Amino acid sequence: MNILDRINKPNDIKDIDREDLPELADEIREFLVSHVSETGGHLAPNLGCVELTMALHRVLDFPEDKLIWDVGHQSYVHKILTGRKNEMGTLRQFGGMSGFPKTSESPCDAFNTGHSSTSISAALGMACARSIKGTNEKIAAVIGDGSFTGGMVYEAMNNMADIKTGCLVVLNDNNMSIDRNVGGMSTYLSKIRVGQQYNDFKGNVEKILMKIPVAGEHLARGLKKSKDSIKQIFVPGMFFEELGVTYIGPIDGHDIDVMEATFRKALKLNRPILVHVKTVKGKGYTHAERHPSYFHGIDPFDIQTGKVMKDRKVMTNTGVFARKLVELGKADPRITAITAAMGKGTGVAAFAAEFPDRAFDVGIAEEHAVTFAAGLATSGLVPVVAIYSSFLQRAYDQILHDVCLQKLHVIFAIDRSGLVGADGDTHQGIFDTAFLSHIPNMTIIAPKNRYELTRAMEWAVAYDGPVALKYSRGEAYYGLKEYNVDIEYGRSEMIHRGQKLAIVAVGNMVQEAEKVYDRLLADGTNVTFVNARFLKPIDTDMIDELSRDHKHIVVIEEEIKHGGYGSLVEEYVMDRHLDVDVTVCAIEDTFVQHGSVEELRRMLKLDADSLYDRIKHIISTDCTE
Amino acid sequence: MNILDRINKPNDIKDIDREDLPELADEIREFLVSHVSETGGHLAPNLGCVELTMALHRVLDFPEDKLIWDVGHQSYVHKILTGRKNEMGTLRQFGGMSGFPKTSESPCDAFNTGHSSTSISAALGMACARSIKGTNEKIAAVIGDGSFTGGMVYEAMNNMADIKTGCLVVLNDNNMSIDRNVGGMSTYLSKIRVGQQYNDFKGNVEKILMKIPVAGEHLARGLKKSKDSIKQIFVPGMFFEELGVTYIGPIDGHDIDVMEATFRKALKLNRPILVHVKTVKGKGYTHAERHPSYFHGIDPFDIQTGKVMKDRKVMTNTGVFARKLVELGKADPRITAITAAMGKGTGVAAFAAEFPDRAFDVGIAEEHAVTFAAGLATSGLVPVVAIYSSFLQRAYDQILHDVCLQKLHVIFAIDRSGLVGADGDTHQGIFDTAFLSHIPNMTIIAPKNRYELTRAMEWAVAYDGPVALKYSRGEAYYGLKEYNVDIEYGRSEMIHRGQKLAIVAVGNMVQEAEKVYDRLLADGTNVTFVNARFLKPIDTDMIDELSRDHKHIVVIEEEIKHGGYGSLVEEYVMDRHLDVDVTVCAIEDTFVQHGSVEELRRMLKLDADSLYDRIKHIISTDCTE
Repeated sequence: MNILDRINKPNDIKDIDREDLPELADEIREFLVSHVSETGGHLAPNLGCVELTMALHRVLDFPEDKLIWDVGHQSYVHKILTGRKNEMGTLRQFGGMSGFPKTSESPCDAFNTGHSSTSISAALGMACARSIKGTNEKIAAVIGDGSFTGGMVYEAMNNMADIKTGCLVVLNDNNMSIDRNVGGMSTYLSKIRVGQQYNDFKGNVEKILMKIPVAGEHLARGLKKSKDSIKQIFVPGMFFEELGVTYIGPIDGHDIDVMEATFRKALKLNRPILVHVKTVKGKGYTHAERHPSYFHGIDPFDIQTGKVMKDRKVMTNTGVFARKLVELGKADPRITAITAAMGKGTGVAAFAAEFPDRAFDVGIAEEHAVTFAAGLATSGLVPVVAIYSSFLQRAYDQILHDVCLQKLHVIFAIDRSGLVGADGDTHQGIFDTAFLSHIPNMTIIAPKNRYELTRAMEWAVAYDGPVALKYSRGEAYYGLKEYNVDIEYGRSEMIHRGQKLAIVAVGNMVQEAEKVYDRLLADGTNVTFVNARFLKPIDTDMIDELSRDHKHIVVIEEEIKHGGYGSLVEEYVMDRHLDVDVTVCAIEDTFVQHGSVEELRRMLKLDADSLYDRIKHIISTDCTE
Repeated sequence: MNILDRINKPNDIKDIDREDLPELADEIREFLVSHVSETGGHLAPNLGCVELTMALHRVLDFPEDKLIWDVGHQSYVHKILTGRKNEMGTLRQFGGMSGFPKTSESPCDAFNTGHSSTSISAALGMACARSIKGTNEKIAAVIGDGSFTGGMVYEAMNNMADIKTGCLVVLNDNNMSIDRNVGGMSTYLSKIRVGQQYNDFKGNVEKILMKIPVAGEHLARGLKKSKDSIKQIFVPGMFFEELGVTYIGPIDGHDIDVMEATFRKALKLNRPILVHVKTVKGKGYTHAERHPSYFHGIDPFDIQTGKVMKDRKVMTNTGVFARKLVELGKADPRITAITAAMGKGTGVAAFAAEFPDRAFDVGIAEEHAVTFAAGLATSGLVPVVAIYSSFLQRAYDQILHDVCLQKLHVIFAIDRSGLVGADGDTHQGIFDTAFLSHIPNMTIIAPKNRYELTRAMEWAVAYDGPVALKYSRGEAYYGLKEYNVDIEYGRSEMIHRGQKLAIVAVGNMVQEAEKVYDRLLADGTNVTFVNARFLKPIDTDMIDELSRDHKHIVVIEEEIKHGGYGSLVEEYVMDRHLDVDVTVCAIEDTFVQHGSVEELRRMLKLDADSLYDRIKHIISTDCTE
């Protein structure tokens, strides 16, 4: 690690001799593989953009210049080059370095990202601010071709073409989202990649750049004016040019020199410019190059074999969902499945393998996914939209306006609901009940275990209206199997009828609440234990009943408190003037950082120990005499 | 009205002789102007698409075929042609015909719309459903060039290019949103319009259509394969072609024959196809042609003069906001304003006139608007994002993920918050507190009158973090001027300290609550009257204080109940075990149809009479002894 030792603060890379850069790239790759093999993380995307990041760091000055990483899971190299090398061992750990850009972590991180397709909008905002303030910092966004399927990118480019200020967009094209990329744009980029030789800087790129007047008409128009129109045919990127964004590329995303020269020139132009860079996801580590999807985000693994350490086969909620969806699909030809570039992650890929004509991966396009599903539903099909909780936030308006307003039979399979762990604040699925439960016509179910998840899916297919099923990341709970009261609209499930205090737990927190309940029982405290099951509508009969012979209801949910299930219970109790106290154990008004789910629960006092202590305290103060 | 008399049910237009169609178009225009002059409504968009709608009705069979109107305010002619002619007199009236497509109103309305850019997604869903079911209905979407600035359109086209099933998209290009259209796409479409002669069917269009293999490669590829590449240059619509959507146009949107022939042919092709139709907004009614923005949505007017009947000059909240924003902008160069194609509607146009370099109309692109503002804020500017409440729903994720997570100083000016009246369920601004109040770091203020709105704006500029100011459509309240306690973070305002029962009113409902308060006072009932002002954080000191010497708190808000301000109060009261009853007068779990605000309030029991009765009842049962 000779050269990497000399990289200790921002801009140190500028002092490295040009001929040493390839070796530095190798060292960075080795460093990445070594650390991520221990911490887990987004390996393949970072391996793919080592040279790209280095080239950008050669031409940008940090922290004055602004670099925005779309999604941001590919920012490890940027972190290494901006003085955070020694923190790589704490990557994605509780209290350690985030796996995403964080302005709170370094002034060299210009903008927090996590969700897709935001970078051009943010960069354009910064570019306009620069014009207004009269400063001269350079501004660049790096965005993958996967993120290019999101509509915000188009909204931003449309606006960018109007504003005409200098803003560099680097399209990091590895021909993948997390999985294989989809859509017309992807086909288009492939066509460019296949149809074009790389532009080396001394050849085409410089020629093209030279032709662009520094302030003036855009490339296409320039060409038209010179009557040199025939050339247009051979110029790739007409899509962008037509929209008013100057296109350069494709260039080799592993050739530092060509990128450095191109970026340097492009940043001098006072216009929106897109540089199309072709990279290989997983580059330089054989296992990751061969299995880029698998190494997109990976748990700790053995470097030699590429095998994940704790690769014990657990059945996840996703797996349960996927298997059941195929089963339902066999029985009912109306069932269709839609996902937004999360085919493997949500299990829709399994359905797609069985029923290719009834499965749709629409790209990173949650909004379209939901309204597209609404279109399927109006035609009598039963679409199941499987999207992670935090990404479904994107489709709030479409859920409300296109699905619920028409009371369409669309099933939302909300995976990664609750705490997700190491991905941190941008990915925690802790707002779904809050943003869905106030929407008229919506029904929300949170199954307590794997068996209930499958039955809830059956129920949702038989129901006629919008239904959201929410379930958490990771291993499916197989406890409480013997509790399997039939699912009935708006009914919760009584697990144990006890006295004085009732625990009402939501979804994945039933498992945690069970531990508390068991310990209380071991203490000789006989509390009531209820599985909330329906979060909307809440089971008001059950609340009425509990209020008659209990002094206290304790709701436990892994969700933001205001707007969640607990607040629905509190509102109901107040509205009816019921004589029962309610305590809601949920996430107070705060975003939740990264760490293991266990650590985060302890921090939030949603672990069994904390919940036990809290309930003991309630019993001792509120439920005595 | 000779010919129109023969149009009484769907498909009747097919029996009209071709040579009589222009006269029918004239009659429809006269009919539209006559009715909308009495009811008010979206006149100019409907005048612009008379022939377009007629042509579509010549080639589609209703209700079997599916026609989706983007946004939907241009669907009046469609309603007239599908048996709803005689209901035009009830247009947008309480209990009458909606101004938007409603599946509940007619089987000929295939999909409810209201928000922009959803139509292609819905149409594509229907087209896929058709493939799955093996049926053969025709599917078409009509979308304006304004809606083409929304990212969902791009997401849908990207997906459409992949799916390759027959789906007709008619781009109704009048070169306007509500106002002048903006962005690279708009420039691009203008270029096509200016650069191209109209294609008449027998000439270019048919030639182009003939060249397309019915099942096979798309146009651009077809041309490339035939080595006829040079033609590409002269073929407009390369943007769409590159993405994989076949482009035809532009054609004259007032020539029924050319449209009919083009649509008929296009609908036979088993591929995504976009027909670019040029129309004139307001066509055929001089005043509307001259002032298409003014006649976009209009109150009842005099047909001769084009003047709105009740054109008394009232100061609206929008006007107050606009004036104050300019004033603030003069004093503070950091202030910038962003809107999403609502320049006039939000008052940002006034700021733009004064500070063109600090104002941004990004097109119908709420998501980009918010993240763009986040970019401005990270650079030290103070962006004010002015968007109507119901449209801001689109940007829920961006508000949460790009603004609040970074606690950026972005001010959201939420116009049309609360009931909006005649536009109906898609446009009611009744979810904003619910979708914003559970987001950490967000602050929400609802000023009670015009004076407080201006002071809240000053406060928001001085504060450092995300702030939402919500205010309602229509006349600004100028009462209660003498109550002007300084705005302090998280503090409500005591208007009158009374006894036993406290009314806590939110924003525009302070005016309504004042009437109730006055009547109670006249009865000799001395209740407490509070202006909530801060909806997040709520004023817990005030609640504590009220709970000490009041038996009942009545919250009044024009907002969905769950997740609103009232539920925050209820949660707090329960959490602290305060000894006070709370009643929340808000909108129960339902969407709210169209009608006047007064009628809707009566229906929802949020008018002064209903509130008075309810509070009298509470006092008599709960606050006695």
